[in-house]
Amino acid sequence: MAKKKRSEDSAPSSASTAVLTPRDKKTLGVLKELADEIVETAAKKRDPHLDIPARTLSNTKYNASARIIEMGKSTNRRQLFNLSQAKAYMQTLLVASGTKMLLDQGKTTSIRGLYYLLKHTIEGTKEETFDDQADCDPIIEDLEVTLGSLREELHVYASNRGAMVGPLTLTDSGDEIDCARMGSGGYSIPSIVEADVIQFGKHRAEFILHVEKDTVWRRFNEDKFWRKHNCILMHGGGQPPRGVRRMLSRLHNELTFRGKKLPVFCLLDNDPWGYYIYSVLKQGSINLAYESRRMAIPDARFVGLRSKDYEECKLSSSVQIKLNEQDIKRAKQIAEYPWFQKKKDWQREIKQMLANGFKLEVESLISKDISYVTETYVPERLKAGDWLADSE
Amino acid sequence: MAKKKRSEDSAPSSASTAVLTPRDKKTLGVLKELADEIVETAAKKRDPHLDIPARTLSNTKYNASARIIEMGKSTNRRQLFNLSQAKAYMQTLLVASGTKMLLDQGKTTSIRGLYYLLKHTIEGTKEETFDDQADCDPIIEDLEVTLGSLREELHVYASNRGAMVGPLTLTDSGDEIDCARMGSGGYSIPSIVEADVIQFGKHRAEFILHVEKDTVWRRFNEDKFWRKHNCILMHGGGQPPRGVRRMLSRLHNELTFRGKKLPVFCLLDNDPWGYYIYSVLKQGSINLAYESRRMAIPDARFVGLRSKDYEECKLSSSVQIKLNEQDIKRAKQIAEYPWFQKKKDWQREIKQMLANGFKLEVESLISKDISYVTETYVPERLKAGDWLADSE
Repeated sequence: MAKKKRSEDSAPSSASTAVLTPRDKKTLGVLKELADEIVETAAKKRDPHLDIPARTLSNTKYNASARIIEMGKSTNRRQLFNLSQAKAYMQTLLVASGTKMLLDQGKTTSIRGLYYLLKHTIEGTKEETFDDQADCDPIIEDLEVTLGSLREELHVYASNRGAMVGPLTLTDSGDEIDCARMGSGGYSIPSIVEADVIQFGKHRAEFILHVEKDTVWRRFNEDKFWRKHNCILMHGGGQPPRGVRRMLSRLHNELTFRGKKLPVFCLLDNDPWGYYIYSVLKQGSINLAYESRRMAIPDARFVGLRSKDYEECKLSSSVQIKLNEQDIKRAKQIAEYPWFQKKKDWQREIKQMLANGFKLEVESLISKDISYVTETYVPERLKAGDWLADSE
Repeated sequence: MAKKKRSEDSAPSSASTAVLTPRDKKTLGVLKELADEIVETAAKKRDPHLDIPARTLSNTKYNASARIIEMGKSTNRRQLFNLSQAKAYMQTLLVASGTKMLLDQGKTTSIRGLYYLLKHTIEGTKEETFDDQADCDPIIEDLEVTLGSLREELHVYASNRGAMVGPLTLTDSGDEIDCARMGSGGYSIPSIVEADVIQFGKHRAEFILHVEKDTVWRRFNEDKFWRKHNCILMHGGGQPPRGVRRMLSRLHNELTFRGKKLPVFCLLDNDPWGYYIYSVLKQGSINLAYESRRMAIPDARFVGLRSKDYEECKLSSSVQIKLNEQDIKRAKQIAEYPWFQKKKDWQREIKQMLANGFKLEVESLISKDISYVTETYVPERLKAGDWLADSE
């Protein structure tokens, strides 16, 4: 527990009532292991330390057979008896104790909540445990990689973003949810979507369409695209948060259509940001490389927008958005990603965007017709099998 | 219709299938009136113009008997035959024609979608109708005030934000929603919540608790506060969007407990931003002054956080966030708002925050105990009737 001076009248903790899930027990196990090691080291009068896997580009590699980004083995040692590391060491153990407190009480909190939970003046000093939240957030990530536990498993969540709708029922925290009957906003995807929270029920979906933004999602929902095409329609509110990625991965891997995994199609902007979102969905990100196996979807397909669409859809020059220097730099970086590097059609795709000199947003298809994207663009691409993906 | 050059292969419009709601018919009526007036003026060989109500501080006033902010009568004339106004005049009619197109087809779009729908090169020139979205957004607001129609009535929506949960059933676009069984994310509040989209069913709620942020909402939801206290729990994702404000107003005005309107309690940060959110919920905003009657809740109660809470809850100095110059300026401005000006307890509240020299976030209460806010703070304040509001 965080050794925190509490005022006498503070509310009693409700620790005793928590029911631990199997996942919680496992997480508490690794937390306890971490603590035990430190105690053992101290008992042997050795210098207590933590070996924290490096969350850097140089410590991630593309695993060509699994087709995902994975974390390497390099670690950084954090020691108590080292002036420049002592504070970070203390903070790491403090975050560990805070997450144990959450787990013990069966409660969750936001990264801001955890920061407030742990922030205090160290007794006998004027030193704060954390000066602001920016000091605490990277420590949470350190602990995640050290323990190999997602922050959600440590009962810390990011804010909800992303929604879905479609011919699927599921159980969320005991509530039966019919994703086909959730009103105009759809089912809001929580940040913790593991099997002990969410169980899938029946479904009639043939594929999943993941779109970038809620505004595009709304067009598809309003046009009942998912009903006409029997699919699950999802968005991630831009860069999809972990809950959305994990949900997408679970739907893809656990549900089937005609004996095969549910295919995932991505509809993203024709810009480096859209490419990047696709690459994260497909093979994982550097920051969450240790979680790629649970979140990446190597078979995800990029259905558009494509650099060829300006010509192919006969779009007006009014919808062009000029690439800025940052875009050009990002596009070139993405072209160098291992998987993209080896795919001729992706090299062509990125090269053509650079040659175009402009990017295109999915919303720009509205200039053809309000429902062009739902009634023409996506159905035609799906029918023609016209998308970018691994060869299948 | 926007006279827009469309390529020959563009998808057929699905205009013919739209079913108009009574609200749509009314909105189409005012749009048609606007157009008819222009045609008449032109027929009389007079200068076509639009008189657009001014969305300025000087054109809003506090209506002390209705206890809301209202719009004054001052307008700005926008003329076609005036070089400096001709473009804005054209843009206003273009936006009007775009919203008519949406209404005719029974479709909605985002402000970004409308921008793309209307953006094109004016025939025979190199001039764009809009250079970027920032040119289009204020024109949408101009049209809203000119017609006295909410943008949602013009079929243009903002992105969804805000969620609710509680002992209430409702029908959303034909789907029956049980707000007590919506999983961990709750029911996502759409941006259009008028009675033709959403009808309330049965409820057992005794009050509504509106919290500022989803992270705080989640603490209350996880602790099943709404079940223990029989209330509807809502958040607006920060500054609440129109859909959330309108939903709150409808719940307050249309549902009753013991023969009285459902009381609304607001739990917001102890900072000028929290004060401002309360003032918007209570009496409306300058920008949407023409809509105060439909959205403001003069009887909304501010349950906290209060400037006295630092002492009263014995909070640690670690949770203080120093006021910056902007905060101080904003706090002084809000103290001058007509209603706040007349309320001694609000003057005291704001003065004490300035004297404290720091602000407090709701999340900081976690430093007392993870569930202090749900198990101690709010229940005690509700029980003691300890809040800021109009005298009742």
